[in-house]
Amino acid sequence: MQDLIQQIRNLLPKTGEWSNTGDDSAALKIEGKSGKLCFTSDSYVVTPLFFPGGNIGKIAFCGTVNDLAVMGAKPLGISLSLIIEEGFPKKDLFLIVKTIADLSEKTGIPVVTGDTKVMEKGNIDGLAINTAGVGVTDRILDEALKEGDRIIVSGSIGKHGAALLAARFGIKSDILTDSRPLLKEIESVRGWILQAKDVTRGGLAAVLNEVAEKNGVRIVVDEERIPVDAGTSALSRMLGIEPYVLACEGTFVCFSRREHSERVVAALRKFNSEAAVIGEVAGKGDQSVGRVFMKTRIGTRVLPNPSGRIVPRIC
Amino acid sequence: MQDLIQQIRNLLPKTGEWSNTGDDSAALKIEGKSGKLCFTSDSYVVTPLFFPGGNIGKIAFCGTVNDLAVMGAKPLGISLSLIIEEGFPKKDLFLIVKTIADLSEKTGIPVVTGDTKVMEKGNIDGLAINTAGVGVTDRILDEALKEGDRIIVSGSIGKHGAALLAARFGIKSDILTDSRPLLKEIESVRGWILQAKDVTRGGLAAVLNEVAEKNGVRIVVDEERIPVDAGTSALSRMLGIEPYVLACEGTFVCFSRREHSERVVAALRKFNSEAAVIGEVAGKGDQSVGRVFMKTRIGTRVLPNPSGRIVPRIC
Repeated sequence: MQDLIQQIRNLLPKTGEWSNTGDDSAALKIEGKSGKLCFTSDSYVVTPLFFPGGNIGKIAFCGTVNDLAVMGAKPLGISLSLIIEEGFPKKDLFLIVKTIADLSEKTGIPVVTGDTKVMEKGNIDGLAINTAGVGVTDRILDEALKEGDRIIVSGSIGKHGAALLAARFGIKSDILTDSRPLLKEIESVRGWILQAKDVTRGGLAAVLNEVAEKNGVRIVVDEERIPVDAGTSALSRMLGIEPYVLACEGTFVCFSRREHSERVVAALRKFNSEAAVIGEVAGKGDQSVGRVFMKTRIGTRVLPNPSGRIVPRIC
Repeated sequence: MQDLIQQIRNLLPKTGEWSNTGDDSAALKIEGKSGKLCFTSDSYVVTPLFFPGGNIGKIAFCGTVNDLAVMGAKPLGISLSLIIEEGFPKKDLFLIVKTIADLSEKTGIPVVTGDTKVMEKGNIDGLAINTAGVGVTDRILDEALKEGDRIIVSGSIGKHGAALLAARFGIKSDILTDSRPLLKEIESVRGWILQAKDVTRGGLAAVLNEVAEKNGVRIVVDEERIPVDAGTSALSRMLGIEPYVLACEGTFVCFSRREHSERVVAALRKFNSEAAVIGEVAGKGDQSVGRVFMKTRIGTRVLPNPSGRIVPRIC
């Protein structure tokens, strides 16, 4: 999958004056202004469309808003494009749109443009949504990481993936998706963090590997400090899946200088008591640069980038 | 379909400081600048994916770029989000992405962000694409129309719809889609036009009805002046469909003051010799305001907004 995405990227021309085109949002300097425009787009094909704690509309709104927020941007507006299967129940469609409407109202981020297409019955499984978003920022969160920087997670991980798996396999559980807009959380720590990434497909393992590779640093996390709630932990054991590869939709990882980490955690705990420092940047100049390690009770091991079809159509 | 779109819109909150949210692109004033940001998004579900003169990638790129162009905006960048059926031939996928890459290169509009999702075999018919776009303009093309304003079309109509229908029904024809970026054409007349709309789903009939309704004017076009090429005309007759409801993907309608119309047509003819004045705005203060009339050889008749499933999955 990552190979395919890379092959597609390689076919496309250079991105001109845009920066951060490999990040959650691409950025462009606004002519004559100190700020930057941020732009992002994601499609959502989650199944089932309704799952514990949310539906496809919730992740479509929050996912795109969070992709702007983690870049340090204030979202200005989003688009909503629906691809609907002929005969899809109107009641369900309106419930999903209402979820988006409520989030739009609550966050003050309007849905300003969009599109609706219908495909014949059997040609799409229910509903797919695309949301794109634009935002502005006077400071992109992309400062270089250095040895000793702290890694902080905003809450317990894997809940979105666990909630979906439980729903799909008919396993009884109380786990709800973590899907939520992260605007206030990120705003509260924006001045003290270097980078932020929302954890999505591939879970904590994917996002940490992406950061380690992109920044050319080694990352070391401490398994005992990574918050995983009891339900997610139990479900992971039952299915033989590590919680580190389970998707989140409302949890982010951020990086701060060592001296700011406690302040960041304190601010994030006002939103979620499970926010915690989970590790640190271990510096360059080593053969293991670009890799992620996890200290466990029995020693240190590699936390690999998840490969293969871990959980398809999770978002 | 239009009812459904209206119902979805009604569920969503107000769009705040954004204007033109019912147009091809939404617009937002850029703080501290005279210009406006434009933002648009469209999904493409055309079938077949490859058709005479183009493929889904071509209409996905041109469609979004044209939605910015008709608002008077200079496109800054677009997103590319792919939903791919598991097992979809890589060769076809890369051909489609290469088409987008070539158009991006040619127009200088970079693809700056995006997303790739895979759905299980049988859960989506091949490939769906979403493109969103951002642009800037110092003047949105949304000046009010008044009696006597001229209606100009940039070329012969219905070719995209006709090409697709021929391909679907296995009818031998030389008709190619008109899909193309309209940036240069619109740039060349921007100073002389009041509004522009790219003709897409529902063809000329849909776009004229939309303009008549939105502007609260009556529109009168002259059937003999509407350019329809011989192949499209023959195919329309064979299928019993009016060419006025056939989709275009690289043709636009624009409106100018009476005294500027010849200048606009002359400029457009440098790109397409079929550009022509096809009618005029017949003013307000009449019961038939918001409607479109067509003068034919045998009298004047209403040109209604196309209703029902004219041609599904045309774009």
